[in-house]
Amino acid sequence: MTVPINSEVALIGPQALADLLGRWPGADGPLYRLLATRIGRLADTGELPPGIRLPPERALAAALAVSRNTVALAYQVLRDDGMAESRQGSGTRLMPHRITPAAAHRANGYFAGMLDNAVAIDLSVGAVECAPVVAEALGSPRDVLGARELSRLTVGTGYLPYGLAELRAAIATLLTAAHSVPTSAAEVLVTTGAQQALGLLVQSEVTPGQAVVTEDPTFPGFLDAVQRAGGRLVGVPPGDVAAIADAVAVHRPALVYLIPSFHNPTGALLPAAARRDIVELARRNPDVTVIDDLAIAELPLPDGPPGWRQQPPPPPLAALAPRLPNVVTVGSFSKTYWGGLRTGWVRAPEGIIARLAAAKAAADLGSPPFQQAILSTLVRDRHEEILKDRADWTRDRYAVMASALSSLLPSWQWTPPAGGLTIWARLPGDADSSAFAQAALRSGVAVIPGRLLSVSARRSPWLRLAFVRPPSELAAAVQTLAAVQPGASGEAELSGDRVPTRKLITR
Amino acid sequence: MTVPINSEVALIGPQALADLLGRWPGADGPLYRLLATRIGRLADTGELPPGIRLPPERALAAALAVSRNTVALAYQVLRDDGMAESRQGSGTRLMPHRITPAAAHRANGYFAGMLDNAVAIDLSVGAVECAPVVAEALGSPRDVLGARELSRLTVGTGYLPYGLAELRAAIATLLTAAHSVPTSAAEVLVTTGAQQALGLLVQSEVTPGQAVVTEDPTFPGFLDAVQRAGGRLVGVPPGDVAAIADAVAVHRPALVYLIPSFHNPTGALLPAAARRDIVELARRNPDVTVIDDLAIAELPLPDGPPGWRQQPPPPPLAALAPRLPNVVTVGSFSKTYWGGLRTGWVRAPEGIIARLAAAKAAADLGSPPFQQAILSTLVRDRHEEILKDRADWTRDRYAVMASALSSLLPSWQWTPPAGGLTIWARLPGDADSSAFAQAALRSGVAVIPGRLLSVSARRSPWLRLAFVRPPSELAAAVQTLAAVQPGASGEAELSGDRVPTRKLITR
Repeated sequence: MTVPINSEVALIGPQALADLLGRWPGADGPLYRLLATRIGRLADTGELPPGIRLPPERALAAALAVSRNTVALAYQVLRDDGMAESRQGSGTRLMPHRITPAAAHRANGYFAGMLDNAVAIDLSVGAVECAPVVAEALGSPRDVLGARELSRLTVGTGYLPYGLAELRAAIATLLTAAHSVPTSAAEVLVTTGAQQALGLLVQSEVTPGQAVVTEDPTFPGFLDAVQRAGGRLVGVPPGDVAAIADAVAVHRPALVYLIPSFHNPTGALLPAAARRDIVELARRNPDVTVIDDLAIAELPLPDGPPGWRQQPPPPPLAALAPRLPNVVTVGSFSKTYWGGLRTGWVRAPEGIIARLAAAKAAADLGSPPFQQAILSTLVRDRHEEILKDRADWTRDRYAVMASALSSLLPSWQWTPPAGGLTIWARLPGDADSSAFAQAALRSGVAVIPGRLLSVSARRSPWLRLAFVRPPSELAAAVQTLAAVQPGASGEAELSGDRVPTRKLITR
Repeated sequence: MTVPINSEVALIGPQALADLLGRWPGADGPLYRLLATRIGRLADTGELPPGIRLPPERALAAALAVSRNTVALAYQVLRDDGMAESRQGSGTRLMPHRITPAAAHRANGYFAGMLDNAVAIDLSVGAVECAPVVAEALGSPRDVLGARELSRLTVGTGYLPYGLAELRAAIATLLTAAHSVPTSAAEVLVTTGAQQALGLLVQSEVTPGQAVVTEDPTFPGFLDAVQRAGGRLVGVPPGDVAAIADAVAVHRPALVYLIPSFHNPTGALLPAAARRDIVELARRNPDVTVIDDLAIAELPLPDGPPGWRQQPPPPPLAALAPRLPNVVTVGSFSKTYWGGLRTGWVRAPEGIIARLAAAKAAADLGSPPFQQAILSTLVRDRHEEILKDRADWTRDRYAVMASALSSLLPSWQWTPPAGGLTIWARLPGDADSSAFAQAALRSGVAVIPGRLLSVSARRSPWLRLAFVRPPSELAAAVQTLAAVQPGASGEAELSGDRVPTRKLITR
């Protein structure tokens, strides 16, 4: 699947589409559904790129020798499934299937070519290297696990869809003690990172076409999961409680996805009063599940709103209403311990946990238990120490990046983040950050254009800079960014890459 | 989600369903679609159990104050999505959402209560304990990984949707050398067990309503993945090439799922000639992807068809046509090394691998890399040794189970398996293996009734017995099974468990 970063709206002619469709009516079922299925599949494989305009109904019907009504119904199915949208006067176009940055980098030939080159400095992924304490434990499990525990682990089947009991208990204790969210082990599901936690929630709660409210911009892995499940994304400005309440009233979403502590990518902290409003909204709308993503909640930074560090951090949503069944909490050890642990969790009522565990059993039968055993000892005994080391690590990198941006790129606008691993910066004027990102990549620095973090996928002057590389690399990267001269037109930038595809599809 | 093992067809009245539906028309979109979505969601959460009969269209329309056409269209959407079926004269009923045995055990209150009890001997899961060489390496990574490798691993982000390069290369070498399937590392994706490999393939290749051909009985994890994706399962007798060809011609499936070496649950080995026929079928049908599941291919048993051990084992499908793009191979280390490694793989053309990697990135961003590094050294250096140990381990257990069955349950019919970890046995007469399984569970032995391994989910006299527990337990388990007296009626067996649910839904 390819994700062109600057996809202008391209057209495909009725005959070209007919050729691509091949033997689409070969299966059982109504013609309109078979046609929709086949077009959807071509979109999935990338043979029809996102954003492409489909032929007018009448023209395609003629090319396929079917009734216009068949094509109209097929387009309707595609719209209902979130695969296409129609606008008055501009026809029907396929919706972008947005995928995670990591996958986009790999799937997009343009990016892939750059990233294969070892010169690139990656500011696109907000991932940390492994904490020394964690690396030590991974390399020497016998230092943290007793011989009896080791042998008890390996005589079992190793299939634990809910997660290892010790780790579920350690996470419950951490939530209860450190985050004021009273939690029992039975209310915890262990997942392969927060990404799987979000993916399982979307799969379990969202039916195709149903609305999902999210802050915009937001964590792109969530957008990806919703798009793949056929959910209909509705964006609201980060932390705007009134806009969230409006969206809930209008769209009756299955899910509301929020990152109150610290928002990704902006690093903003949602104040306590706004959190109380969100919890009240959840209470008044029992059919709407509110997700509180704590993946970066343990990464405060020295900056942020004046005076906020003198007060205790505002509590997670579930601390305000621990027994409200439609407030679900998600978290991860990726940003503090190491992403390579691939360990996250969900905290929810036992009924939801059972549903998610059944979905997890179908997805992978459970995450590897051995590493969960090692991790459970670290969560129990070394958590504070790991957080403190990570805070020092993060602060140093943030300071270098912030000072380099201020001195070398004074025309960029950004609000100092209260926490997290990223700076959300606005390019001057009406610059297109997608074009800028591609020019930067050619200079050896990868950043994420705002478009990839957005529901709308529209042109954006914003971009996300992760400050997780070594300080010397960060300083060099900002120097490189300051020298980048993006072309005036995104089209020109891409022409070399896009010509073959456009030739194929627009004849 | 609950999966009643013996679900009789229950009814729900129009008023009761209206109550359950609650505020279903609260969202945007056509009424019929909202109604279908809400009913589908109630099925997902288990509030409407699988198999339940929905009210007649006219009656529900009256209760909801909508047109009969709205209800008719909603039922049609449910049928199209594989969520319901209608039969002349018996109305519309929800299709069972089948889930894996592990999840079913947990989700079903009846089973869960028994399994919490430590007395139960589990013959239901075909999982092995960890091979000693593997357990040793997990406990002492520094014995197999150099210090440089260890530190190189932990400085990265740890996000590897395709898998660790070393493990991809080791699997490619293994396939090339030991299975005669020439493979490059770029054609390998590492997954969280074969279950995830199958799940990603189903997600990527099957659109809702599309047909999927599978042997019946088969591995229940595959049925689960297809059901959840909304695929339409079409069953054929195991190893029946003519039936497979017919099903392909009639149903034009997205996938054909086969376990030629050794079929789960029967343990049969597909002969070389039949394999050539399957490959030719794939060649003639480029739109149909054929999956060859090798998860238990490295577990031959001493029995099987006369003389077959004197010949080299028949090759995997991909060995017969290594460059045929629609033959995809799936495998796992779960049955030889340990299920707790949660490591499987897909071998496919690079285009499919890229698509699966994008889906895996959205699902979990990649499996944990540290354990992949340990595993890659074992695959490279200790594979033969691990296989030999596992062969001895399996042979001993099989011998005990086979001899106990022959002497204590001579009326059960079964064909000695050529390989694998299970015996597929038929109860005498027209016994219902689901009722038998529940009676056995009350006596402390868990087995899988054939119904759970079947596309049809119909009453079956067959059951699956895994011989993976210690030999003494296996002997005791067969003694227990020989003493089981199932009630004459499955209904009577379940009445205590089912009453509360039926009361809720049938008023």
